[in-house]
Amino acid sequence: MNKINLGLIGFGTVGSGLVKILRDKKSYLTRKIGMEIDIKKICDKDLVSKRNVSVEKSLLTRDFRDIVDDPQIDVVVELIGGIHPAKEIISDSLKKGKNIVTANKALLAQEGQELFALASDKGKNIYFEAAVGAGIPIIKSVREGLAANKFASVFGIVNGTSNFILSSMSDNNCSLSQALTEAKKLGFAEKNPTLDIEGIDSAHKLILLTYLCFGRFVKLEDVFVEGISRISLADVNYAKELGFEIKLLAIAKKEGEDLEVRVHPTLIPREHLLSSVGGVFNAIHLSSDLAGDLLFYGPGAGQLSAASAVVADLIDLTQDIKAGLFRPTLNIIADNSIKRLRKIDDFESRYYIRFLALDKPGVLAHISGILAKFGISIASVTQKERRKTQIVPIVMIIHEAKEKNLRAALTAIGKIGAVKEEPVAIRIEQA
Amino acid sequence: MNKINLGLIGFGTVGSGLVKILRDKKSYLTRKIGMEIDIKKICDKDLVSKRNVSVEKSLLTRDFRDIVDDPQIDVVVELIGGIHPAKEIISDSLKKGKNIVTANKALLAQEGQELFALASDKGKNIYFEAAVGAGIPIIKSVREGLAANKFASVFGIVNGTSNFILSSMSDNNCSLSQALTEAKKLGFAEKNPTLDIEGIDSAHKLILLTYLCFGRFVKLEDVFVEGISRISLADVNYAKELGFEIKLLAIAKKEGEDLEVRVHPTLIPREHLLSSVGGVFNAIHLSSDLAGDLLFYGPGAGQLSAASAVVADLIDLTQDIKAGLFRPTLNIIADNSIKRLRKIDDFESRYYIRFLALDKPGVLAHISGILAKFGISIASVTQKERRKTQIVPIVMIIHEAKEKNLRAALTAIGKIGAVKEEPVAIRIEQA
Repeated sequence: MNKINLGLIGFGTVGSGLVKILRDKKSYLTRKIGMEIDIKKICDKDLVSKRNVSVEKSLLTRDFRDIVDDPQIDVVVELIGGIHPAKEIISDSLKKGKNIVTANKALLAQEGQELFALASDKGKNIYFEAAVGAGIPIIKSVREGLAANKFASVFGIVNGTSNFILSSMSDNNCSLSQALTEAKKLGFAEKNPTLDIEGIDSAHKLILLTYLCFGRFVKLEDVFVEGISRISLADVNYAKELGFEIKLLAIAKKEGEDLEVRVHPTLIPREHLLSSVGGVFNAIHLSSDLAGDLLFYGPGAGQLSAASAVVADLIDLTQDIKAGLFRPTLNIIADNSIKRLRKIDDFESRYYIRFLALDKPGVLAHISGILAKFGISIASVTQKERRKTQIVPIVMIIHEAKEKNLRAALTAIGKIGAVKEEPVAIRIEQA
Repeated sequence: MNKINLGLIGFGTVGSGLVKILRDKKSYLTRKIGMEIDIKKICDKDLVSKRNVSVEKSLLTRDFRDIVDDPQIDVVVELIGGIHPAKEIISDSLKKGKNIVTANKALLAQEGQELFALASDKGKNIYFEAAVGAGIPIIKSVREGLAANKFASVFGIVNGTSNFILSSMSDNNCSLSQALTEAKKLGFAEKNPTLDIEGIDSAHKLILLTYLCFGRFVKLEDVFVEGISRISLADVNYAKELGFEIKLLAIAKKEGEDLEVRVHPTLIPREHLLSSVGGVFNAIHLSSDLAGDLLFYGPGAGQLSAASAVVADLIDLTQDIKAGLFRPTLNIIADNSIKRLRKIDDFESRYYIRFLALDKPGVLAHISGILAKFGISIASVTQKERRKTQIVPIVMIIHEAKEKNLRAALTAIGKIGAVKEEPVAIRIEQA
């Protein structure tokens, strides 16, 4: 077989980037892989909008069946996103003996277990490098490059939109809504940015990383997810004064026999490499037993960077096919030292907390007393301003505390008459 | 074939780490790859020293022919380092139909072109992930994960010993010789650290990265190599005051139709991620046309991290073999837009320069005049102390200048009577 026939479903940003690369670099790629990748059919429901690459009309279709049912197509690239009909496209294609390349993190996070089992059953592969970290080869690195390793944790900045917003707030001293407007203007945020801002997209990616690192398929409802929508400029600036940047982190971490899987805003000390990850960049940190602490950094979004990952997957597939036999991806082995998912109540963390309180005698003593009652000890406290009988912010760093105790303490503190507004609490990660 | 037979040549630090991993993780690895990796023979000239893993006497030999000539051995892992007999081991093993895994950057940098051609001729592979960046999967990432990309530059910190020394000088305000003593005590520097300190080890690794990124096999004598042995604590501290850290960088960079390949101490602005890479850590930065700017970071040395890379290579080989047919690594395609290697005289760079001069009227004017004569313009100048009729340091940052002009200017300046000692010049990289 001297070429593979590709069917592309989803001719949007990444899809047209893919077509552009496969055309512009055709001769380079053919020489590199010793085989031709031929685009046989392109499906999209919108065949009207202008793309930055032009294709012959004969390649286009609105009906994905024209691809799924075509026996000449070897590989289906699914880039439409969402659950339906992406799931049907992938499962039907597998059943028809086609290999799959997809960037669909939402689908794989929700239905991956079923789809991977089906692929294995059919002797086919699902490649998904573009689903996490765009062009950063993180999936391949975890799966193959670090195949001998067990992991203690994987955490990182995996959503470019949120990171752009938090970086803008920190760098330009602007509010979240100003930063979001800017992000939309630059094409870094969608019209409806909820999935990004509320941490859902990060959670989808985290589920895939958790699967690769720990061999566990976690359900979205079992991931603790908190987005950045409640982060204020004041907290960004107070954190900075204390030597931290606020980042939206996706974290999967072994704690004894438990696995914690969570997405939330996090204070990261300035010395940590992750604190310097700005704009739409992503960075993923792995703690491994053999290769030690590793960090992978690169643009987390972009037409060509995501398409770069899709092409890498296609190349892997062509090499598998060229070898003449099916070459399955490595088995994912469950880490059996993990006995359970830790419940949010049992999470332990250091915290940044902020209260708005009347500046009158006894308030701080009252707050500290409640924290002490719940076994929470204070590492530092700063009253940010001094205005008699006015409301002033009080910022504290507290030592490791259980989530349950912290929440109870904050509720009690919220009931003090002198404390105005709901207290703010943001986790601190040191490692 | 349900197992592959491995012959290990070189039972030192990494070799014994490899044996430890293959034993401790035997069942995990067998489940992961669906195949057993069996150590059939271990060769070392020293069979007396104690290792942190014990092996049956029957596995051991002092004669590498017992491995190279054994028809039952499928894969030879070469970890002895150096040129001879490593070259003979690898080429004879290839001729006998064995695949190779090696960590030998010196050998591959010098003889790689010949050995890779031989491997391809024999239908076998040479894997060498451990040769650059220990456990960081940088070779696989460039070769496979970023296979669709062309590169504008690759640069990074690829020598743990030098980076440990420079980091110590900066963090602990100590001299180079104190830092080196500490490095030796901690096992981060060899008794004779010349290869590391003088940049040769970095150059070997850079030659391999240049081959992978640009498809060019550069000779060591064509790489500009300057080590860290002349870096003084004073320069580390002045650089820091100006907002820079000094790092030993290995750089391959396209400049128009030229390729620059060089290793030298470099001032890096504190905002750049590479400036925060401390201790024995390595970090490699890639500038690619599709996936953008990427950084890979991790421990650059260590028994288990290097062995982790060797095991990853072995796993790739087992999967190739399991697929039933030879699966060659991807072709390396030469970047034909590169017409020549740029000569050192034509390098252009910003520079940090420091003079020791008598603090008397007219000296600065004299120095500036000479720089101007050679077309070099000054971005900033600081006289670090003020001691009449004493020798004081003068620190300058100069704008982009050609190496040739800078060298000529420094020679002329060195001849001024008031200038004591040879001027110091260190390149500045912004990107």
